[in-house]
Amino acid sequence: MAYIDLGVDEKTLPGITGLMRFRPETAKPLSELADVLLRGPHSLPAAERELIAAYVSGLNDCGFCSLSHAASAVAQYAAADVTDGAEIVARVRADLDSAPIPAKLKALLRIAGAVNRSGHAVTPELVEAARLAGATDVELHDTVLIAAAFGMFNRYVDGLATFAPEAAEDYVPAAQRILVHGYGIPRPS
Amino acid sequence: MAYIDLGVDEKTLPGITGLMRFRPETAKPLSELADVLLRGPHSLPAAERELIAAYVSGLNDCGFCSLSHAASAVAQYAAADVTDGAEIVARVRADLDSAPIPAKLKALLRIAGAVNRSGHAVTPELVEAARLAGATDVELHDTVLIAAAFGMFNRYVDGLATFAPEAAEDYVPAAQRILVHGYGIPRPS
Repeated sequence: MAYIDLGVDEKTLPGITGLMRFRPETAKPLSELADVLLRGPHSLPAAERELIAAYVSGLNDCGFCSLSHAASAVAQYAAADVTDGAEIVARVRADLDSAPIPAKLKALLRIAGAVNRSGHAVTPELVEAARLAGATDVELHDTVLIAAAFGMFNRYVDGLATFAPEAAEDYVPAAQRILVHGYGIPRPS
Repeated sequence: MAYIDLGVDEKTLPGITGLMRFRPETAKPLSELADVLLRGPHSLPAAERELIAAYVSGLNDCGFCSLSHAASAVAQYAAADVTDGAEIVARVRADLDSAPIPAKLKALLRIAGAVNRSGHAVTPELVEAARLAGATDVELHDTVLIAAAFGMFNRYVDGLATFAPEAAEDYVPAAQRILVHGYGIPRPS
């Protein structure tokens, strides 16, 4: 049960979805931010951006965010005909160093992990390593902002003690809806 | 110098302002989020909401965000005819426990500090203490989200190593502009 009365059935609207129903004024910019960062036109595939979100959320031990964005990363890999997306996501979350991913994505995930510790933890060496692997200014910018934004979403969801389903499969239907509709503005149902 | 080429003079557009010029697609929801949280209609005075932002930014050692929101808190206190706003802001940032502020605000700032460590650090006891001091559900919600959002803004600004003026007085003109115009959507100049 959340610390505040959200006025919703948390089983039906878990995690951030109940918070968004409770406070539509903040839900609007939060949804737009997620949509631009994770679904907007980009040189980084949506699957990789979702993976950054899931990775940071795992570091912060945020059950709702890590499971929901892991499910979205898997759904995006599948939509891009990557058949081993579930294994990629699991291996990144278990051990980044040994995960079977491109060098650029690994370097960006290292930056995301640093951002999650502190903005001051991002070093010129981490940035240079990502550049050498081919990262552009926009990719560096958006990696830092995705990591920072999920630090926010994680603290928001857990700081108010919202309900989160525990089973990974419980997040698959929402991931499929998001795959089709994006993170657009939540509408009253 | 920022880690990426923002295409701006950072002395003129320091901290987040250069980042917003670089990436207007993310600037729009970020500005709207700040405006709703810090300037929207609310039972918490704008000065107190700015103080929460300055306090969290100080905990994260984010020079740009802590100085700019401290300046905005002082400007908002002055606009509300509170003559010792500068002292209030300085004392909260130096030592929350002994700061001369209302019990409700102190309890909310303790929640903000917990959020900044981790969403999981917010305890039922911290929430109950704020309720006993008179905090409402919306005040609790917005305190958690302001703290979480400034964890994001701090990581964004410092993770990309943007320039920040060091002197508190350098932030006063912008605080005066924000007092009048809010955090609305940045427009190209």
